[in-house]
Amino acid sequence: MTSESKKKCTIAIDAMGGDFAPDNVVLGTIDALSKLTNANLILVGNKNSILSVLKKNNLSFDENNIVHTSEVIEMGESPTTALKSKPDSSIVVGARLVKKKIADAFVSAGNTGAMMAASTLITGRIDGVGRPTIGAQLPNIFGICSLYDVGAGKDAKAIHLLEYAIMGSIYAKEIDGIQNPKVGLLSMGEEEGKGNEVANEAYDLLKKSNLNFIGNVEGRDLLTKEVDVVVCDGFVGNIILKFGESVPKLLKHLLQQTAKKNIFDAIKIMLIKGTLRKALKSLDYQEYGGVPLLGIDGISIIGHGSSTPKAITNMILKAKKMYDNQLVDKIKNSISDFKKRNVS
Amino acid sequence: MTSESKKKCTIAIDAMGGDFAPDNVVLGTIDALSKLTNANLILVGNKNSILSVLKKNNLSFDENNIVHTSEVIEMGESPTTALKSKPDSSIVVGARLVKKKIADAFVSAGNTGAMMAASTLITGRIDGVGRPTIGAQLPNIFGICSLYDVGAGKDAKAIHLLEYAIMGSIYAKEIDGIQNPKVGLLSMGEEEGKGNEVANEAYDLLKKSNLNFIGNVEGRDLLTKEVDVVVCDGFVGNIILKFGESVPKLLKHLLQQTAKKNIFDAIKIMLIKGTLRKALKSLDYQEYGGVPLLGIDGISIIGHGSSTPKAITNMILKAKKMYDNQLVDKIKNSISDFKKRNVS
Repeated sequence: MTSESKKKCTIAIDAMGGDFAPDNVVLGTIDALSKLTNANLILVGNKNSILSVLKKNNLSFDENNIVHTSEVIEMGESPTTALKSKPDSSIVVGARLVKKKIADAFVSAGNTGAMMAASTLITGRIDGVGRPTIGAQLPNIFGICSLYDVGAGKDAKAIHLLEYAIMGSIYAKEIDGIQNPKVGLLSMGEEEGKGNEVANEAYDLLKKSNLNFIGNVEGRDLLTKEVDVVVCDGFVGNIILKFGESVPKLLKHLLQQTAKKNIFDAIKIMLIKGTLRKALKSLDYQEYGGVPLLGIDGISIIGHGSSTPKAITNMILKAKKMYDNQLVDKIKNSISDFKKRNVS
Repeated sequence: MTSESKKKCTIAIDAMGGDFAPDNVVLGTIDALSKLTNANLILVGNKNSILSVLKKNNLSFDENNIVHTSEVIEMGESPTTALKSKPDSSIVVGARLVKKKIADAFVSAGNTGAMMAASTLITGRIDGVGRPTIGAQLPNIFGICSLYDVGAGKDAKAIHLLEYAIMGSIYAKEIDGIQNPKVGLLSMGEEEGKGNEVANEAYDLLKKSNLNFIGNVEGRDLLTKEVDVVVCDGFVGNIILKFGESVPKLLKHLLQQTAKKNIFDAIKIMLIKGTLRKALKSLDYQEYGGVPLLGIDGISIIGHGSSTPKAITNMILKAKKMYDNQLVDKIKNSISDFKKRNVS
């Protein structure tokens, strides 16, 4: 670890973000504080609301670490309009804290689009990154498969998919501890040429890169093949991610239908509920705690709107890990190396 | 039912198609014969191999209904090359039987790409259809959601998505018995403008059409929203379909991992195996029996490579239903009506 990384890490947290804000955010932040050393946490949001949650729960938090904001971007608002019309919102102010280097990271379970827009437009992109990307971690029979992009960009070009692969590989190595992560390109078949136009072009770029590119992977491979990082257009990734998130709901429905038809099945299903819940734990996003937005010149983590205190805590711990492992600097270096090699 | 549809229906079946051909195909065909009236079944393939399966299983089948072919397109072969280099293959000959109106339908569990290419290039498209489409039926908490396209075309244009919606709606009405089927457009959000370029353009076309268009649907809606027909580019649909098919494998893995950790969980999981299998039955493609290729001037059904005899039987029964309900003629009329309205 360099001296740089020993500097105290400052993480700003959007106290107003999420369906259960500020309560869940404040509770998660206090819990994270107890788990962290060498970190400074800042709550960004309505001071009175934050204080009232602290009081209600009999908790204490340094008031100097509350940055008061008077506005809130609601979940349904149009991101670009909201950024302009609400300059004193927690998302805008949080992104600005990172831009001004007052904070190293900003974490929010609020409006995803607004968080992406604020991170990109206010905090700013890393030089050379055409498009930032959001990754999601899917459970896989070999562990975890990270999918980039799941919605930061749509109509991505081939070069963007390559950037996702570069950034995703660094994240897999530094944060998930995977040496030489295997990178796959999402496509319709294993053979070269089985993609759409953009994917076929990206195949060539990935083949020429110095990444550990294993070729095309199909839809089924996301859950069943040993691959660490898979890249695709944000339109496809977003649809896959949401489809996957809805599987437990279908399973619950199918089990209920089966239980209705036969009393013995109903009893068995009742008995196994707890076991099933345990087995499906890896499908629970709360365990992962938010998804990183990579390509930003600062740490930016976006959480699910329905984040629990535990999810908030995990998001903060993840931000700290990204800081300790100098993720942003490493992405900067890799992107800059890549651009140099391809210009010269 | 018109007099036309009372004509005896002739269905050609690719005896050489699938991982377990000709055995599973012959067994499924014999079973279908016993379930059908007013239908003529033709087995297309190597006569000796077919006769040997019949003999081995002590079954009888009219030899006049065997069309001998000397070549087989293997599962891994390149479709376009194979069509040219193997003119006496079962897939080429079967598609030609429909082209020549000797058969009304052709059913194959063989090389999907070759079957699509043969149907499109040999049997031929319906006038006005830019691209044929393959649909898949996904289980949904409200019943069934049919997804078009799941791989016939990639880099589809907006007009193709509209054609998929027209053809898919007719199939839903005539074959699945859904009056006024709800049509959705796969996208990243519910609001208009949340798609990629092609999807946003398709949104406008669908809004102006006389279909029962309910707007954008997201990835999660495929399994959990009341929508009958969802359209998307074949690249996206193919990835979703294969992702969905791999979910049971992940579940099995997660249950096994849970069982390993705790003996009580292991016992419960063992007890519930049969119940789970019952609940997950609707995820089993064998129940559906192949997917239709719509937009072809004849009935074309493509089955899974690992089709069981039951899946083959269901494919044949589906072909008969499509014939009885004059699906091809109805698609012809709708496409022609649509083109007339948009030209005038």
